[in-house]
Amino acid sequence: MNPPINVFDYEALAQAALPPVNWDFFYGGSDDEVTLRANRSAFERLRLRPRVLMDVNQCSINTSVLGLPVSMPVLLAPSAAHGLAHPDAELATARAAGAASTLMTLSTDSTRSLEEVKAVAQGPLWYQLYIYTMEEAQRLVQRAERAGYAAIVLTVDLPRYSRRERDLRNDMNSYQQAHYPDAFNGNAPHLVVDGSDNQHVYMGDAVTWDILPWLRSITALPIVLKGILTAEDASVAIKYGASAIIVSNHGGRQLDGVMPTIEALPEVVAAVAGRCEVYVDGGIRRGTDILKALALGACAVLIGRPVLWGLAVNGQEGVQHVLELLRKELTLALQLAGCASLADIQRSLVQVP
Amino acid sequence: MNPPINVFDYEALAQAALPPVNWDFFYGGSDDEVTLRANRSAFERLRLRPRVLMDVNQCSINTSVLGLPVSMPVLLAPSAAHGLAHPDAELATARAAGAASTLMTLSTDSTRSLEEVKAVAQGPLWYQLYIYTMEEAQRLVQRAERAGYAAIVLTVDLPRYSRRERDLRNDMNSYQQAHYPDAFNGNAPHLVVDGSDNQHVYMGDAVTWDILPWLRSITALPIVLKGILTAEDASVAIKYGASAIIVSNHGGRQLDGVMPTIEALPEVVAAVAGRCEVYVDGGIRRGTDILKALALGACAVLIGRPVLWGLAVNGQEGVQHVLELLRKELTLALQLAGCASLADIQRSLVQVP
Amino acid sequence: MNPPINVFDYEALAQAALPPVNWDFFYGGSDDEVTLRANRSAFERLRLRPRVLMDVNQCSINTSVLGLPVSMPVLLAPSAAHGLAHPDAELATARAAGAASTLMTLSTDSTRSLEEVKAVAQGPLWYQLYIYTMEEAQRLVQRAERAGYAAIVLTVDLPRYSRRERDLRNDMNSYQQAHYPDAFNGNAPHLVVDGSDNQHVYMGDAVTWDILPWLRSITALPIVLKGILTAEDASVAIKYGASAIIVSNHGGRQLDGVMPTIEALPEVVAAVAGRCEVYVDGGIRRGTDILKALALGACAVLIGRPVLWGLAVNGQEGVQHVLELLRKELTLALQLAGCASLADIQRSLVQVP
Amino acid sequence: MNPPINVFDYEALAQAALPPVNWDFFYGGSDDEVTLRANRSAFERLRLRPRVLMDVNQCSINTSVLGLPVSMPVLLAPSAAHGLAHPDAELATARAAGAASTLMTLSTDSTRSLEEVKAVAQGPLWYQLYIYTMEEAQRLVQRAERAGYAAIVLTVDLPRYSRRERDLRNDMNSYQQAHYPDAFNGNAPHLVVDGSDNQHVYMGDAVTWDILPWLRSITALPIVLKGILTAEDASVAIKYGASAIIVSNHGGRQLDGVMPTIEALPEVVAAVAGRCEVYVDGGIRRGTDILKALALGACAVLIGRPVLWGLAVNGQEGVQHVLELLRKELTLALQLAGCASLADIQRSLVQVP
Repeated sequence: MNPPINVFDYEALAQAALPPVNWDFFYGGSDDEVTLRANRSAFERLRLRPRVLMDVNQCSINTSVLGLPVSMPVLLAPSAAHGLAHPDAELATARAAGAASTLMTLSTDSTRSLEEVKAVAQGPLWYQLYIYTMEEAQRLVQRAERAGYAAIVLTVDLPRYSRRERDLRNDMNSYQQAHYPDAFNGNAPHLVVDGSDNQHVYMGDAVTWDILPWLRSITALPIVLKGILTAEDASVAIKYGASAIIVSNHGGRQLDGVMPTIEALPEVVAAVAGRCEVYVDGGIRRGTDILKALALGACAVLIGRPVLWGLAVNGQEGVQHVLELLRKELTLALQLAGCASLADIQRSLVQVP
Repeated sequence: MNPPINVFDYEALAQAALPPVNWDFFYGGSDDEVTLRANRSAFERLRLRPRVLMDVNQCSINTSVLGLPVSMPVLLAPSAAHGLAHPDAELATARAAGAASTLMTLSTDSTRSLEEVKAVAQGPLWYQLYIYTMEEAQRLVQRAERAGYAAIVLTVDLPRYSRRERDLRNDMNSYQQAHYPDAFNGNAPHLVVDGSDNQHVYMGDAVTWDILPWLRSITALPIVLKGILTAEDASVAIKYGASAIIVSNHGGRQLDGVMPTIEALPEVVAAVAGRCEVYVDGGIRRGTDILKALALGACAVLIGRPVLWGLAVNGQEGVQHVLELLRKELTLALQLAGCASLADIQRSLVQVP
Repeated sequence: MNPPINVFDYEALAQAALPPVNWDFFYGGSDDEVTLRANRSAFERLRLRPRVLMDVNQCSINTSVLGLPVSMPVLLAPSAAHGLAHPDAELATARAAGAASTLMTLSTDSTRSLEEVKAVAQGPLWYQLYIYTMEEAQRLVQRAERAGYAAIVLTVDLPRYSRRERDLRNDMNSYQQAHYPDAFNGNAPHLVVDGSDNQHVYMGDAVTWDILPWLRSITALPIVLKGILTAEDASVAIKYGASAIIVSNHGGRQLDGVMPTIEALPEVVAAVAGRCEVYVDGGIRRGTDILKALALGACAVLIGRPVLWGLAVNGQEGVQHVLELLRKELTLALQLAGCASLADIQRSLVQVP
Repeated sequence: MNPPINVFDYEALAQAALPPVNWDFFYGGSDDEVTLRANRSAFERLRLRPRVLMDVNQCSINTSVLGLPVSMPVLLAPSAAHGLAHPDAELATARAAGAASTLMTLSTDSTRSLEEVKAVAQGPLWYQLYIYTMEEAQRLVQRAERAGYAAIVLTVDLPRYSRRERDLRNDMNSYQQAHYPDAFNGNAPHLVVDGSDNQHVYMGDAVTWDILPWLRSITALPIVLKGILTAEDASVAIKYGASAIIVSNHGGRQLDGVMPTIEALPEVVAAVAGRCEVYVDGGIRRGTDILKALALGACAVLIGRPVLWGLAVNGQEGVQHVLELLRKELTLALQLAGCASLADIQRSLVQVP
């Protein structure tokens, strides 16, 4: 293959580069992968309505999220165990995010510790939180705050681990423990939860909205809720003081059959009505996907798998290239749509079928 | 193939295990199998809208149907001639249903007699009725009542046997009489009706709503109508005192081109307006399918072919495994949707396109 | 292949039996065959809403068209040059129609003369008219009336012959003149018009609504207009005294991209509002297709290609078998839909998406 | 392959005739080619509603655009570098357009100069303008006016060159400079802009609506805006005195994901409300496509790739044949739709789904 020129090229190269079990772990969705596919196909159904004869010579895509300046509205979504993609793991990812002047979200289930990652990061970091136990969660949040992470991203769509059938067929759990025993243990020793019955250490299924005042009581950091798909929950999130919402279906990896995120975004944006920032992830592979998300009201998008494909193919450099490809595609898409900045993007730029 | 981890795996294994004519008999639909396919694809078009941060640690799917407690809202639909799937026939199926603490519906056209099945059953049983002649019907209903069956399920969508072209091409009738002469005769000696002209012994085409007062007069059991697809008929059923309705298109095996059941369910539920219980069958293969049916107003679902796949692959144990897979999938789906019990399922959980 | 059990089987057998050029002539549509495919796929999108527990034991599908009794609402559409399908040509077709007690429409471009066909026919006949010249048309109409044809079916969707690209690629015109020189000349010596420039003898492009009073002046027969697709033209047809309308797009063989007939039918039925009979052809292959057409307001359907497949496979007997298959399928579909006669078919039986 | 009988045949022959890199350059779209495909598929979704029994014997498709008589409402869209398709380049194209008595639009990036093309042209010419620099643009416009071009067609959907990934993978830029160094330099020495970073000489991204009064000040020619897709921009164009609008998405070669042109046409026509002429290009391959565009309000259509396929296959003669094929198809489509002239085409001829 020629050198990669878009994210899909990185996907193909990553599949060739990774052991099949690792590929399946990153690529797969839950059950029949209906939502995994829908996340992508939903973007294709949206039509752009570009404006012409605008001065787009100086096109800027700078923005900020929760007050942090970033060079583009493209952030790194949290994803587990980068060590399954590349030996440099999250260190490479963080260096790439910093080089691209954008923000990385570190997963609780990272291969490297939050302190190690912070040590190499040049850009802002958020910390993604799973609640295995309350005690551990408190320790992790306070470690993240001390280390300089700028927000806590609480994942709310994983009360239990879903059935990811590729992993079940691959016996991913044993494979990982045999070959990458510490891949998920960067921050704390964890059992990998895997949809089988050994989920005993994970208490996500008992975490309720009451977690928010508690979190507020143990940290001064803004709290971002990741995994909201409905107007109803967006309204509750606002009531509980969420600083931001990430419209997400966990990349099609949790409840299969849920709405594709780009179709859930409008109702969340409408319910929030400007009271907090809203981001979206899921299926974003092109600059025009980002443009559509922004037109529908997102302040920024997060990308998950594309980062992992870059990492698998070429470590830090691969991640950086993926980010630069998306930066160029987004800038060009803005210009071709007649927008000189993110502020020029209007809702009427997208026609929903 | 690895050990089966979902119903589709059992389907593939059953196809490998069964003689092709038997497979076709169970798998096939009528005419062009439009409805057979639509029953499945209709589920994929429905989107789930999950809620987050609910306490789902103690998730229960216990329920009851017509006052009978069952461990889950997943019942066994009636299906003919289990002897074509496994030598243990309905005895294996009944034992599996009992072990799973759910309800089995025995077909009039079963391989084993209703009394034999009752003798091995540990859970509740319903008896499905075809009316070959009034005299036979009366005898069967009264045998079922004496044996302890808890309801009579009258199939109303088979005024005549449809054209199931796989069976016609296979000359299923002769094949069955040669190889499995008693497969349909567990309860009474029957000709297999097959869409050819020898339907003379079957009087379903003369059975009208007047059958209901007559049935009421010969049995004290609740009467369930299986095969209603319209609001109009649901209203008539209520008028005639039906205890419950099963929204069904006979698994795509009767009139080809009718609505997929999950699309017919809402109008039936609306017409019934709580005046009787409503169940649905047709195309249910996943826990999320069940969740969608419940959100659209079904009290429970019935599964047909998945039971036969389990039976064909591994007898009683296979059926039990299929039931346990669906139980786990449904429980997990509920949790991932933010529901701690069936009572938490709201209509807004499903978005109809 | 096993013996044919449905119309699709006859289609496959006919393709195997016919020389490819003949097959293409009968099978093909115009241009990209968009309408040809749409005629079929439109039926699949319509959903049936069957009623249950009706007495359908005595199910009758007898009806009449323009006062002529027929054994079923399935008539034979006009189609050209049956001699390209079978040496017995229209004689076989007419005998089969008579044996089935239904009506045949003879094409102006038939292989055998209208008088020969009448001589062997036992059922009613209609005569389809193309207007090559006014003089010839007058002669043909008066011959048909004298011979005992019961109506004149004026084709109105062929002002010019379309581009049927299969025929153009096959040089069908030369092939036919070489191998079947008289195939189209049963009633008058005709040039085959073929979308090339030699259409000089055909005056269809100058025929207007004024043809109707003229036709009325030269014959006492009822006049049926074949090829209307819009409410607008249906209203004009009523104004000009048409006895009946056939909603038709010439089997997808004239203007490519027009509405499938089953989608055009409702607007024509609404515009006509009972003031004349309305029939439909195009894509009917199953009893359930016929049922859908009747539910949407057609008094009867006409079938074209299925007749030719039967004829190609087995002459008169093949046509008869095709007709009997459809009769059985329609009867069964009615019963399974809860209708004991055509009068029981209600509009609500079909759900339009 | 037989001799070509429609535009798709020319497409296949052109692909066989052209070097793959040249084919890709002409055929390809931007990014994922979503809009490229949508331009075609959108036509298939539109249904025609033909009228019958109209006198269409004298069917004329003569018309005029901006006062220039043309023999049909089919114009030649501007396209770059005909020298990549055939050594005679735009000279062959212009001769063919003249022979067909229709109008050709010459691209700024043509292989042959506007004066050379004018010298061989027998029909009217328009000049398409890209603004590399203001000085060059002024010189080009004034050369075109002096040479006798009848209008300036300003392309407004190319503020920057898009990512055409086929060209990027082929390194089209180097290939062209090595093998066809002057292919784009007929009118002025240009760098090929290619989506990489060397777009420094092109100032399209700074061109705004203010260009229109400036253009007006340097030429008396009518100004046509090519590349408008929205009602909003159509209104602005009217305000700035545009003489005509071409609804275009650059053949799916600029912003990927924009509306197919046939779907954008109605809103532009409605916004313009008769105040200027509106044309459309994109995906037109059939006479019925043209008919649909005219019914939706276009005064004429422009064809791009079909011209190049004809040119690649057979030079001037190939282009002429393509034009004659479309002329015949359009004439026939009009007749089959019941229209004797373009004035008879009504909006109700097309049913939008």
